[in-house]
Amino acid sequence: MVTTEQTIILPFSTRAERLIGQEMFKVMDRAQALEREGRTIYHLELGNPRIAPPREIIDATVEAIRAKQLGYAPMAGVRELRDAVGERIAGRIGRRIDGDSVVISPANLLISQFLDLTCNPGDRVVLFTPAFPSYWAAAAHSGLTVAAVPLSQENGFHLDELQIEAAVAARPRAIIVNSANNPTGAVYTQPMLRLLARRCEEERIWLLSDETYAELAFGWPFFSLTSCESSQLVVMSSFSKVFSIPGYRVGYALAHPAVVNKIALSTSTLISCLPIFTQLGCVAGLSVLDRYAERVRAQCRRVTSLCTEWINRSGIVRCTTPESGFYLFIDIHATGLDDVTFCKRLLEERHTAVTPGRSFGSSCSSYIRIATCGQEVDVLEGVRRVVEYAQELGGANVKAA
Amino acid sequence: MVTTEQTIILPFSTRAERLIGQEMFKVMDRAQALEREGRTIYHLELGNPRIAPPREIIDATVEAIRAKQLGYAPMAGVRELRDAVGERIAGRIGRRIDGDSVVISPANLLISQFLDLTCNPGDRVVLFTPAFPSYWAAAAHSGLTVAAVPLSQENGFHLDELQIEAAVAARPRAIIVNSANNPTGAVYTQPMLRLLARRCEEERIWLLSDETYAELAFGWPFFSLTSCESSQLVVMSSFSKVFSIPGYRVGYALAHPAVVNKIALSTSTLISCLPIFTQLGCVAGLSVLDRYAERVRAQCRRVTSLCTEWINRSGIVRCTTPESGFYLFIDIHATGLDDVTFCKRLLEERHTAVTPGRSFGSSCSSYIRIATCGQEVDVLEGVRRVVEYAQELGGANVKAA
Repeated sequence: MVTTEQTIILPFSTRAERLIGQEMFKVMDRAQALEREGRTIYHLELGNPRIAPPREIIDATVEAIRAKQLGYAPMAGVRELRDAVGERIAGRIGRRIDGDSVVISPANLLISQFLDLTCNPGDRVVLFTPAFPSYWAAAAHSGLTVAAVPLSQENGFHLDELQIEAAVAARPRAIIVNSANNPTGAVYTQPMLRLLARRCEEERIWLLSDETYAELAFGWPFFSLTSCESSQLVVMSSFSKVFSIPGYRVGYALAHPAVVNKIALSTSTLISCLPIFTQLGCVAGLSVLDRYAERVRAQCRRVTSLCTEWINRSGIVRCTTPESGFYLFIDIHATGLDDVTFCKRLLEERHTAVTPGRSFGSSCSSYIRIATCGQEVDVLEGVRRVVEYAQELGGANVKAA
Repeated sequence: MVTTEQTIILPFSTRAERLIGQEMFKVMDRAQALEREGRTIYHLELGNPRIAPPREIIDATVEAIRAKQLGYAPMAGVRELRDAVGERIAGRIGRRIDGDSVVISPANLLISQFLDLTCNPGDRVVLFTPAFPSYWAAAAHSGLTVAAVPLSQENGFHLDELQIEAAVAARPRAIIVNSANNPTGAVYTQPMLRLLARRCEEERIWLLSDETYAELAFGWPFFSLTSCESSQLVVMSSFSKVFSIPGYRVGYALAHPAVVNKIALSTSTLISCLPIFTQLGCVAGLSVLDRYAERVRAQCRRVTSLCTEWINRSGIVRCTTPESGFYLFIDIHATGLDDVTFCKRLLEERHTAVTPGRSFGSSCSSYIRIATCGQEVDVLEGVRRVVEYAQELGGANVKAA
């Protein structure tokens, strides 16, 4: 008898078979395997920022650990952090925000929690594509149908009225909007975001606004949906990107207290709570956020500009100029390879890790995403390799034609 | 129009309505609210150990943070920790364990992950009751039916053949077994655990063995199901209790590599990964585990013995003598109050927080659970208040009768 996986393992659940995970984590795992074989790998696959985080965060975290703050935290998050987030938002929008409207949870988990709490299996959720892979993974995990509303490269991947109406017309139970955007770097305009929120209210659709990269919008101050009061709107963000601490796994959501309570119950059910010390680190970070984020924004703008110019001068690959953050969404169709083949060969042959476009939607298989937030010298070498490899492929295409 | 919650909030999902969370976290939240009002509260509600954790863990964690190990980790966990856990288990059972059979995840999440990956909504899972509240919460969250197989106080809450056959006869898709047990402190015998594993194999039932408290079994070395090789068996544990670091939120599972991969994908989908620095702290902890756990076991044994004696001398409340860990499951039926009323009144009137028995199964509403792992002086004062309050109630009962 052949002992294949099928014969020795009991069947998994339907939910297990639907798991897609996050493609860029699989790329990272393969890249790390190559590193264990002694290869130098240029990491452009993950938004894993390498800028030094604020010293205040590190010091406060270490202090909390040394002070033995190693017990359980309240399920909705440490009160100081909920209050500090509320004050931060209040200061920006000029309206009092109570800490009870804020809940702390890993940002990636907040996506699943939002979908799980608002949608039943079989319900429809709208994503504007390209869309962050975690939305797809969370929707699949929750058994939801995704209605993809594509944004166009020609329009700089911006959101416009036609797309908002297409989203509403799909009769979804929920919509996820992500400005500043991962992977395109687009920042949607205030009128469009307000229109989307209004239409969701009119049509009784839950709306999740993922503003993880908003503090990194180059045209700061950005417009945030936290300024719209609506009980069906959940605004979420993460401390990972703006503070360069993705390993902390701390994010937050601003929502109606009834939604906050549900999210806290979900956190209690799934992971009990978050560490106290990482949360206290984030409290310290908030006190220096403005100053620190300004520096990160300037750095992001400089590096993405440089890379965009390089890519668009290649004559083969191209991308729109990001208005925020540290991602470039690169059109590789002229290389003659699809995204997955391009990524695999780039990793094995040029030791450069990037993320295939289809992770952001099935219509994106002629794109790759690169993250430019690593060590600058490595990022530039990685981008050089992407461009060089694309040019070689493009040249070969021309010769073959 | 009255703007009640119903009128302003869109309906939640069925899953959201099923969320029960963890009762002891709600008790803790209420207790902390009282503390903010200036009250001194005796915390016996949560297994939130106050013994100082190994210095090696703290130092390694701080070192990793200072070394800026603040990025993403592999979705299955940091390789060093997977290997160290594998070696630790291998050393105990005398069989080679590969790190690929180990996956790192918060232990509480592992419960949900196991159920989600093995069971479909509507499937049945067996719990031997009293059973840890997270099993109930996770089962409800996954839409499963729980078949409760009660263990008896007269038998010291041990597992026997009749209960194993009752579990199998319920035709479940999965069974969860928990030895050393929370809340009873019972440690099941090797023949019974082996029988359970064999019967699950014969009947093609998934088995989760939660061994979170096994290192704290007083009759150490304990029998662990890690010594059974079976592709349908998942053995999980946590670093929270044995190292007194519940705030780290790090646990692990030993399973067939195909199951490990599914769990890693689920982790990637839900929370991306765990912090690197907490995982490296646990690696350092494993190097001193034997020495440290011996001290914790001795402390647990001493305090639980003292408390058990006190309780059983009360003439009103009673409990079996724990064989592990730091929980006492106390029969309060003679007080004339049910568990929830007793807990609420004890908290409000005597400022002592304990967990109602029904969190461990609906048949347990004449029990409370106390955790004796806090500061010893506070624990003893808390237990004194429990006994005193029970005696007053018991006395009032006698007078009323």
